[in-house]
Amino acid sequence: MDVTLTLDEVRRLATRTLIHLGASQDNADAVADVIATAERDDCKSHGLFRLPGYCIALRNRRVDGKAVPVVTELAPGVVQVDARGGFAPLALNVGRAPLAAAARRQGIAAMPVVDAYHFAALWYEVEALAELGLVAFAFVNSRSYVAPAGGTKPLYGTNPMAFGWPRRGRPPLVFDQASSASARGEIMLHKRDGKAIPQGWAIDREGRPTIDPGEALAGAQLPFGGYKGAAVALMVELMASGLPHSHFGFEAAAEDTGDGGPAKGGELLLAMDPARFVPGGDAAASLDHAEALFGRVLAQDGTRLPSDRRIAARQRTPRDGIRIPQRLHDDILAFTK
Amino acid sequence: MDVTLTLDEVRRLATRTLIHLGASQDNADAVADVIATAERDDCKSHGLFRLPGYCIALRNRRVDGKAVPVVTELAPGVVQVDARGGFAPLALNVGRAPLAAAARRQGIAAMPVVDAYHFAALWYEVEALAELGLVAFAFVNSRSYVAPAGGTKPLYGTNPMAFGWPRRGRPPLVFDQASSASARGEIMLHKRDGKAIPQGWAIDREGRPTIDPGEALAGAQLPFGGYKGAAVALMVELMASGLPHSHFGFEAAAEDTGDGGPAKGGELLLAMDPARFVPGGDAAASLDHAEALFGRVLAQDGTRLPSDRRIAARQRTPRDGIRIPQRLHDDILAFTK
Repeated sequence: MDVTLTLDEVRRLATRTLIHLGASQDNADAVADVIATAERDDCKSHGLFRLPGYCIALRNRRVDGKAVPVVTELAPGVVQVDARGGFAPLALNVGRAPLAAAARRQGIAAMPVVDAYHFAALWYEVEALAELGLVAFAFVNSRSYVAPAGGTKPLYGTNPMAFGWPRRGRPPLVFDQASSASARGEIMLHKRDGKAIPQGWAIDREGRPTIDPGEALAGAQLPFGGYKGAAVALMVELMASGLPHSHFGFEAAAEDTGDGGPAKGGELLLAMDPARFVPGGDAAASLDHAEALFGRVLAQDGTRLPSDRRIAARQRTPRDGIRIPQRLHDDILAFTK
Repeated sequence: MDVTLTLDEVRRLATRTLIHLGASQDNADAVADVIATAERDDCKSHGLFRLPGYCIALRNRRVDGKAVPVVTELAPGVVQVDARGGFAPLALNVGRAPLAAAARRQGIAAMPVVDAYHFAALWYEVEALAELGLVAFAFVNSRSYVAPAGGTKPLYGTNPMAFGWPRRGRPPLVFDQASSASARGEIMLHKRDGKAIPQGWAIDREGRPTIDPGEALAGAQLPFGGYKGAAVALMVELMASGLPHSHFGFEAAAEDTGDGGPAKGGELLLAMDPARFVPGGDAAASLDHAEALFGRVLAQDGTRLPSDRRIAARQRTPRDGIRIPQRLHDDILAFTK
């Protein structure tokens, strides 16, 4: 049985619940906006499905819901945000304007984020930067879930990499993909719904291929695309927590309390101003040039651009509302009882 | 039948041949060093195997062997190199020191390369930057060879992305992987040797899966890892030629003369100074932290780090020499007859 909510109701439900559990208004608003935006774009695995995890982490006082992030310019092109043990969304909101300013001034800038708990959709970050006219990357890690190439035990996080490219007069082109064959949230949804997972997503504790989502969660996820995906997972681990010197997946795993909430970890954003990459500073010509490439993609039957499905969803959800399982709704309401 | 050469003989053979065909000493040295380094590391697909392609492009006057690259600082963090219609290696050599200086000054810097003909191993670039203590990315495209997600016609280049991470007292950790399921050079080597290619590498002109290397070269290569690899291919296309505003793969393909030489295209390098990503500027702590991660990878049976195979090869080749097919050796000698 499902419950249908408006986007405003999703946002208010998330905000109210987080504040009840001790989050500050700023932190609750930042998290609720990521959740509502994910529901708007029909990304269920990062929508209200995540709210209980945030709540548990607050209730267990693992994450500081009142954290006030601190921004430090470490170099002309490096804007560090220390999340001070809070959730990532507020840290990212606070750092976005200084990062964008640095990218416009220097041509390229980076934002290492430390001491953060990331549980949110990564495309949200790069889309926000791309909407400011910047090309953006985001790298984030999590607890050890994914086996390295040739190995059988979890080491890397699912380690998504997101990329955003600005488009004139349209929503940016954005992709956000785990280095694992599937998002962990997808396996969790399969387990919740009692469904088998596809071959190739995971191995069990003994290193044998499995289609049982429970065995998969207890074993190790596999990288996408074999050893090449494993190399991407390693690169994301180094970018997200090596450069910022935050927790690697295995260090976050060692601190895991098993409460289902987010892991401590690092994150790194890169932002580039396309106007500063060409003589004369004409970003319009570069962006129009990219549109010619996108046109070539779409000219082939059967293709679509990354994020087209999300952009289509956001036309639909304000009209049709957001459907979530009754049980998830009950679980969320239980946090405020 | 094979010919065995010393590394010095490889280098001299390449230099002498390129100069004979009109390259300047600087250009010939730059190309010969990439070729000799690839042979040293047993990367046959980017070793002497590539020399005939360079030679043909010079003989046909498609590429200017006497080009003098021009470096322009477009922004404090953006060092553009205009290769002036020459091969990429000299342009990259010329830009490396200004790029490294900008990365140390700004924390992060980018080097867009335009009007270049790239035919070389990409790991060479990121390894050179990582040996200077910098974390590095390189993105390069080529002619349309790879179908987009859902499509059946070539659009993207094989679009490698390379990544380098500095290690204290050891060669850097480096990977360099095509966004296609295989390097195009690998398919060319299979064709030369009369061998079938693995399933999943390519489709024929009708969009049907093929294991025939000739059909594959005439059809389209497939991205690695399905739609996720296709998204990486699109990202590389945008980074390599979108931001620098150079030729996309389909524009290079439109100019293809079919001579087997390199395509005109863009390239982008990113360099980050790990010392500038942490308060206090202690890169050593970040690099030691990464070593703990690498130790965890190697602690699992069956694993190795990217580039371990190359590093092992470079112990072997100075002693055992470089073996190339007699026919390739004859083809190269024919250019100077």
